[in-house]
Amino acid sequence: MGNCFFSQDKNTNVRVSLPAVCFVWEIAMVVLFGIFVRYNEEADAHWGEYKKTHNITTDMENDFYYRYPSFQDVHVMIFVGFGFLMTFLKRYSFGAVGFTFLIAAFGLQWALLMQGWFHSLDYSTGKILIGIENLINADFCCGGVLIAFGALLGKVSPVQMMVVSLFGVTLYAVEEYIILNLLHCRDAGGSMVIHTFGGYYGLAISWILYRPNLNKSKHLNGSVYHSDLFAMIGTLFLWLFWPSFNSAIANHGDGQHRAAINTYISLAASVVTAVAISSMTEKRGRLDMVHIQNATLAGGVAMGASAEFMISPYGSLIVGFFCGIISTFGFKFVSPFLEKHLKLQDTCGIHNLHAVPGMLGGFISAIVAAMASESIFGMSCLMLLCSLFKGLILKLPIWGDPADDNCFDDEVYWEVPEDEESIPPVLEYNNHMAHKHQDR
Amino acid sequence: MGNCFFSQDKNTNVRVSLPAVCFVWEIAMVVLFGIFVRYNEEADAHWGEYKKTHNITTDMENDFYYRYPSFQDVHVMIFVGFGFLMTFLKRYSFGAVGFTFLIAAFGLQWALLMQGWFHSLDYSTGKILIGIENLINADFCCGGVLIAFGALLGKVSPVQMMVVSLFGVTLYAVEEYIILNLLHCRDAGGSMVIHTFGGYYGLAISWILYRPNLNKSKHLNGSVYHSDLFAMIGTLFLWLFWPSFNSAIANHGDGQHRAAINTYISLAASVVTAVAISSMTEKRGRLDMVHIQNATLAGGVAMGASAEFMISPYGSLIVGFFCGIISTFGFKFVSPFLEKHLKLQDTCGIHNLHAVPGMLGGFISAIVAAMASESIFGMSCLMLLCSLFKGLILKLPIWGDPADDNCFDDEVYWEVPEDEESIPPVLEYNNHMAHKHQDR
Amino acid sequence: MGNCFFSQDKNTNVRVSLPAVCFVWEIAMVVLFGIFVRYNEEADAHWGEYKKTHNITTDMENDFYYRYPSFQDVHVMIFVGFGFLMTFLKRYSFGAVGFTFLIAAFGLQWALLMQGWFHSLDYSTGKILIGIENLINADFCCGGVLIAFGALLGKVSPVQMMVVSLFGVTLYAVEEYIILNLLHCRDAGGSMVIHTFGGYYGLAISWILYRPNLNKSKHLNGSVYHSDLFAMIGTLFLWLFWPSFNSAIANHGDGQHRAAINTYISLAASVVTAVAISSMTEKRGRLDMVHIQNATLAGGVAMGASAEFMISPYGSLIVGFFCGIISTFGFKFVSPFLEKHLKLQDTCGIHNLHAVPGMLGGFISAIVAAMASESIFGMSCLMLLCSLFKGLILKLPIWGDPADDNCFDDEVYWEVPEDEESIPPVLEYNNHMAHKHQDR
Repeated sequence: MGNCFFSQDKNTNVRVSLPAVCFVWEIAMVVLFGIFVRYNEEADAHWGEYKKTHNITTDMENDFYYRYPSFQDVHVMIFVGFGFLMTFLKRYSFGAVGFTFLIAAFGLQWALLMQGWFHSLDYSTGKILIGIENLINADFCCGGVLIAFGALLGKVSPVQMMVVSLFGVTLYAVEEYIILNLLHCRDAGGSMVIHTFGGYYGLAISWILYRPNLNKSKHLNGSVYHSDLFAMIGTLFLWLFWPSFNSAIANHGDGQHRAAINTYISLAASVVTAVAISSMTEKRGRLDMVHIQNATLAGGVAMGASAEFMISPYGSLIVGFFCGIISTFGFKFVSPFLEKHLKLQDTCGIHNLHAVPGMLGGFISAIVAAMASESIFGMSCLMLLCSLFKGLILKLPIWGDPADDNCFDDEVYWEVPEDEESIPPVLEYNNHMAHKHQDR
Repeated sequence: MGNCFFSQDKNTNVRVSLPAVCFVWEIAMVVLFGIFVRYNEEADAHWGEYKKTHNITTDMENDFYYRYPSFQDVHVMIFVGFGFLMTFLKRYSFGAVGFTFLIAAFGLQWALLMQGWFHSLDYSTGKILIGIENLINADFCCGGVLIAFGALLGKVSPVQMMVVSLFGVTLYAVEEYIILNLLHCRDAGGSMVIHTFGGYYGLAISWILYRPNLNKSKHLNGSVYHSDLFAMIGTLFLWLFWPSFNSAIANHGDGQHRAAINTYISLAASVVTAVAISSMTEKRGRLDMVHIQNATLAGGVAMGASAEFMISPYGSLIVGFFCGIISTFGFKFVSPFLEKHLKLQDTCGIHNLHAVPGMLGGFISAIVAAMASESIFGMSCLMLLCSLFKGLILKLPIWGDPADDNCFDDEVYWEVPEDEESIPPVLEYNNHMAHKHQDR
Repeated sequence: MGNCFFSQDKNTNVRVSLPAVCFVWEIAMVVLFGIFVRYNEEADAHWGEYKKTHNITTDMENDFYYRYPSFQDVHVMIFVGFGFLMTFLKRYSFGAVGFTFLIAAFGLQWALLMQGWFHSLDYSTGKILIGIENLINADFCCGGVLIAFGALLGKVSPVQMMVVSLFGVTLYAVEEYIILNLLHCRDAGGSMVIHTFGGYYGLAISWILYRPNLNKSKHLNGSVYHSDLFAMIGTLFLWLFWPSFNSAIANHGDGQHRAAINTYISLAASVVTAVAISSMTEKRGRLDMVHIQNATLAGGVAMGASAEFMISPYGSLIVGFFCGIISTFGFKFVSPFLEKHLKLQDTCGIHNLHAVPGMLGGFISAIVAAMASESIFGMSCLMLLCSLFKGLILKLPIWGDPADDNCFDDEVYWEVPEDEESIPPVLEYNNHMAHKHQDR
């Protein structure tokens, strides 16, 4: 066991770097929150006066009641959904759910600040005024970072992920401002802002961090029966709450209502077509859990940008129909191709679930709303360059990342129980017998 | 492993049939949605005008805000609740959660259409106008089908389940129309419409599909420690969100409020009495997980029909009290009897959790509301006949269902990981030693 | 296996006592509910009239819509959150989730009565009038009892836990009345009322029930890989829904809004600092699952009392910052000290997650609101005495509790599947070989 920490001369000891990063950044948060962040008028004790001056007759008109149920669903998606979706690896489940927890908990604080400066700054006082919608947007931003984590899963250290998170949230806030405020796109569910961004951000970093000898950890880059079931917890909560994701910051009234319906329908279609392609591409028609865990969600990703639009229920069905197909094909054929020919090691296949369906969603939205897709393209290039630069920084040999032969292994960053108690009685007997033979 | 696909001359290859069914039916959905389905006035962009013409002063009056939180809870119950409840089998957990995903995702689309034609058709335009209440009802309808799946679990192919789903949703929409619109019963939580229907539909099909040699798969028809825990995820989310299930389509205001309270109380009582009977019927007083996973829910099933009624909190307690007892006795004594003497192989024991408590709920509701229970009885017979006929169709040798000796086995329809990595180090050593002996 | 029932002359057969307690108490509930409990004006069919006489124009003003989404989140925290958090033990997961289910389902009924007599009694009719807020408070009360269960986990019988639950709910209702109604403290999220109470109630009982030979069960007092993952389900749902917990019974409007924001922020900070300390205190910087599962929640506990206050976002950050540190240190250093020197066996470490952060929350609230903390101190002593007395009763040899060498073992109170099917093929072969050797 000892040698798993120093193989190939890589030092994975993060005892100094991880606490240092956590403490310094968290103290920075306290200071910055102290200077900048206050409650907005709906969360502040002056709400009573605000109601009077704005002729609001009931507390029900507080935005909290319009958005809190959706917020909670989004919150579950980010931490349980993304976290458990990535537990499919047989010995990296602690890392999946634990690092998700860490980077999203830090990321949402930084996102409240970054997004606040761009969107919720009260220019008269210089304060960021936050309410329930800010919490939702902060969670969305963490979603983008966690998508990137999906490509890097098992190959980076928690310190690297904190850096990816800090930088990713910053980049996210910038691109979000450009897409929503400068280009005036509509993207309530974040097809472009969250999924395309997160997808290419993660892929760019993963490309820079290419590990030629990753097959040394091949025996750990797979699932066991129960880890696949844990991953289904993630899949289902993502799938179920996606209507809340796409409607959470939509307009009150018919906007939220329609966004939820469109997403519900699109997701249903992508389950059916993902199953069809999964069965069709296996020689005995058997289903592949990877497809069921991932491609079934593609309809939700693609509906993000146009969830609020009047694309009508059959329009949503068509979106889900094709995205289920494209995403499953991606997992089956495109990912192996990308790894072999483009040196792109994408642990969770975010290219097929987020990057491509997200772009599709952007195109659909562009067609429906006749948007300026060229300027989006220009911005994408800019983003990609930033991501690649970020990746180069992460190649520095200071981050405590694992060597090629101990990737995907929780033992590196977690104290892992030894599981000897799970040996069934018959084996203990067997074990006893084998030792007896040895003694002879 | 190879022989698990062709035992007893049964061909379980669904590579053609499953994709064909998925694609053809999904394309039919797109066409039918294109012709028939539109947003209703609360989800449509004309909501602004509608508000004005109907003197509605706030977006909060949109039905979305009355029902969306309950809808999300129901949604979780259908996919996580039913899906994980059935993961208790040691090697059929992929099938439990995966096929639930597939048939409910398809079923809800077909339900939107079938229920739409009966309940939400705008006669002036010939369109089905959908809103949040339609999504809830579509989920309810899938609940009925998934109950039937509980009786068939592990013994049918996914293609058969798609057929069961198509036919079941159709039958459901008809019986729902008869019970609610022609007989004018109240059944907000679906004791009769969902649970009794789903229970007898599944039992009838299972009876026709009787497998005399099912004990060949006996070694797989049971749980392991962690599969029982996964099932508890299903149980708890069903139990917790049942108040939302029974109040989701109840009347605004006191109706939804009372339905939630009644269900909460009834469920609490059935946990306590289910535990009591489970302990009482084991020689050392030890609890049986099957009872905890299932009979604890009986109070929710039985409260369905009368959830909205003024039966008062102690009335709800009494309902839960007796249903917990009856359901646990059912699992302990009635199910073995039915299997032995009536050739009824009911994998999940839906007879005890859905059929009987559902009927009880119908009777309670009939007593409270003085309903015409004879006409319900007549209709039940009709339904049973349809279900039996359906079962006969499924006996045709074209569906790719498993042979008697590979039921309850995920290997048939899923690519299953091999789990060799889960061997603890001590055993690998042992293994090594045994081989060394062998070499000598 | 047989000897696990009678080791050390302890009889763990609960076949008579458990059903007897369940039946007698449940019948008492039916009778008491029949005499005392009715719907309040918002859940009663007279709501229509009530609206008219109180000039309420919309059903949306029914408290149900203000609180039901939060109630459901709290409900999930109690049963899934607490239940699964305690599944971390390798062979006591059934007990964790099953006994949580039982004692909370009974406890909430008794809480509706006890809290009703103190808070919701209609003096003109002598009836307890219940609505959604009563359900939330009943769940809160069960939370207190389940915290106590955390200290006793694996060492008591279900009959004892029913007694702990009955007595705990009673004591809870009294201390809640004193703190909220007599001392006029604010404690919307229950830092003192729930967490400090539950913590010291459990610790006092555990101290009385000290087992000097508990190390005989040491091999079962730990986790395996997947049991740690199940526990993370509990952790995450607790963490995610804590904003709902602290805002569920806060004032309508800005009160609920602010409580949710404060809790969200505080929790985020405690994750980051808990990770920092966990990494810092392990020689290779590796994280300990116990800390991630528990200390990350400390920010929510401590924010309970002051969640509604205008402590501003950075105030919440600071609370979370320090609680994450203190709680992790508690798990690392204080718990072993307490066990060694104060004979305090605290299975889940509730001292570090509930007792201490809860007290801190009380102090913060006291500072902010300038409360009379001495009277709280006086009351705490009284409570502790009652808890110790309760513990003495539980020492009587009539409860069917396990002997020191079969604690933490589900086999005592549950029928446990044998798991032989989980042996991978390579081991079966190995097994076969070993026997062959034996035969030679």
